[in-house]
Amino acid sequence: MMSKYSIAEYRQRFAPVIEKIDEIIWEITKTRVGLINIATRDLVESGGKRLRPLLVVLSARLGDFDKEKIYHIASAIELLHMATLVHDDIIDEARIRRGEISAQSKFGKDVAVFLGDFMLSRAFDIFTLYLSRHSLRKLNKVVGLICEGEIDQYEDKFEYKVSIREYLRRIRRKTALLFGLSTYIGAYESGVRGRNLSNIYRFGLRLGTAFQIQDDILDFVADPEESGKAIGQDLINGIYNLPVIYLVQDEIFRDRAREILGKDRLSVSDVVDIINMVNNSKAINQSRELGKRYIEKSQKYVEHLPDERVKEELNFILSLQLNRQQ
Amino acid sequence: MMSKYSIAEYRQRFAPVIEKIDEIIWEITKTRVGLINIATRDLVESGGKRLRPLLVVLSARLGDFDKEKIYHIASAIELLHMATLVHDDIIDEARIRRGEISAQSKFGKDVAVFLGDFMLSRAFDIFTLYLSRHSLRKLNKVVGLICEGEIDQYEDKFEYKVSIREYLRRIRRKTALLFGLSTYIGAYESGVRGRNLSNIYRFGLRLGTAFQIQDDILDFVADPEESGKAIGQDLINGIYNLPVIYLVQDEIFRDRAREILGKDRLSVSDVVDIINMVNNSKAINQSRELGKRYIEKSQKYVEHLPDERVKEELNFILSLQLNRQQ
Repeated sequence: MMSKYSIAEYRQRFAPVIEKIDEIIWEITKTRVGLINIATRDLVESGGKRLRPLLVVLSARLGDFDKEKIYHIASAIELLHMATLVHDDIIDEARIRRGEISAQSKFGKDVAVFLGDFMLSRAFDIFTLYLSRHSLRKLNKVVGLICEGEIDQYEDKFEYKVSIREYLRRIRRKTALLFGLSTYIGAYESGVRGRNLSNIYRFGLRLGTAFQIQDDILDFVADPEESGKAIGQDLINGIYNLPVIYLVQDEIFRDRAREILGKDRLSVSDVVDIINMVNNSKAINQSRELGKRYIEKSQKYVEHLPDERVKEELNFILSLQLNRQQ
Repeated sequence: MMSKYSIAEYRQRFAPVIEKIDEIIWEITKTRVGLINIATRDLVESGGKRLRPLLVVLSARLGDFDKEKIYHIASAIELLHMATLVHDDIIDEARIRRGEISAQSKFGKDVAVFLGDFMLSRAFDIFTLYLSRHSLRKLNKVVGLICEGEIDQYEDKFEYKVSIREYLRRIRRKTALLFGLSTYIGAYESGVRGRNLSNIYRFGLRLGTAFQIQDDILDFVADPEESGKAIGQDLINGIYNLPVIYLVQDEIFRDRAREILGKDRLSVSDVVDIINMVNNSKAINQSRELGKRYIEKSQKYVEHLPDERVKEELNFILSLQLNRQQ
């Protein structure tokens, strides 16, 4: 109840920003090729939270805010994110993404590969137009690290002996770096430097980590109707995320969990067993605790920021994050 | 015999350039992730002709040649090309590429998607470092058009009623634009402007068209041992290229060809029938004629260039193109 109210509040509070972002994405991806327009429209209309571009915009308000420039950069960040989702879906063979049929199962992987590439090229064109070379290079580095992370994750598939430290390293590249990049370039491109720049960057990184932890929890406890994500998707794909890592260390369920996860192939009932064990063990609570620690870390960086209005918005986002159901 | 000799001569003549290009590609793609290094090494060692980066280098010699800069740009162009090959293979499900098992069948599409993205991000980083904003924007535009072309090609799959005009439009985006871009940015980044710039650009576009036409011919007549490409690959994938388009217009074979290509699914014997008809009809000769016309157009643009040594190298490449078997 509480969480549903919060998401509604989020959408209401940031509606003008989100609408503007969607408008620009729609405008910069427009093309003569009908299939691309259909796919982009689906992605825009599927109604993501636009959290990354929102972070660009809010961070930019710490400095000299150039609306035209910042909103274009923010939209390109979301487009880059959408491109990674489209490519991700080819790998996961995910049929549902944000409650919608994914691009890959709708059009086939033929289209999904180059649809993602097309989005990347349009995002890069906006970046080329508006970003300083310093930010462009930081962006390229982050995109490279995201790709490395995805390939590492592939190599670690079906590997359940993962330490929390290794897990954190994985989700840094998978999610946190793009959050960090969003806050960084928003601020940097508005002329923010020094302590303020490093605080907003660190805030973004920690928030991104907390965000991914919550995503991982939702893979086990979410209501698919509400989250738009089928349960156990990561597990089925051999991506053993935080709750599973805790489960494998759980005194009561450890042996049974290892026995199942050590198999060459998981049956449907194996998957159900793991999901039930996760829900009956301390794994979910432990994951929540870790997520909470990262939210608290983010809060610490917000405290030192100079702008009261921005601080209030960022704290609102943090408070919502803790109870996010989608 | 003649053609084999020529390819050997090409490799010998341009060995120093090709070695330097490979060295830089290897250096800019180096990463901590083992799988990426293995895949990149395979791609580098599979020994492509490095025609696109060579065009960058030769075109750059028309102006003020900055070795460090031009060789890096040239290598990034080849890396961009490799990335599109890796992504292409996901679509084609090609198992053989340049005589080697393709990245996708070796590592699975999980890796191939993000391997391609990784290469793109490294290429973009080099472009960001060395290219003027003018060239960067031209590059982004070309990459966008290539993606649009790939998606268009997907929509036109199994469509045999294609005019020569539509075909030329398709291969412009598929191949010719990247050739044109290579000659353009090589020259532009060396300070070439005006007539010389537009002549070298047009040369590149026409050469690219001729190159793709020859590729399409080789899909029907190549010796797989020599070309490193299985025969009839495009045909099987529903990409009806130039010889098929001519076959469908051939007085003798038209009806039989249309009957087969109109089927919902081609059997192996259907594919063999089409290949045989192509080889027995005028389709191959007509395709060769069209390719030759584009070579002649390219030659015309070379004539007007100001540098005798560059002209000689470009004419050598053109003469080789006509008889290329791989």
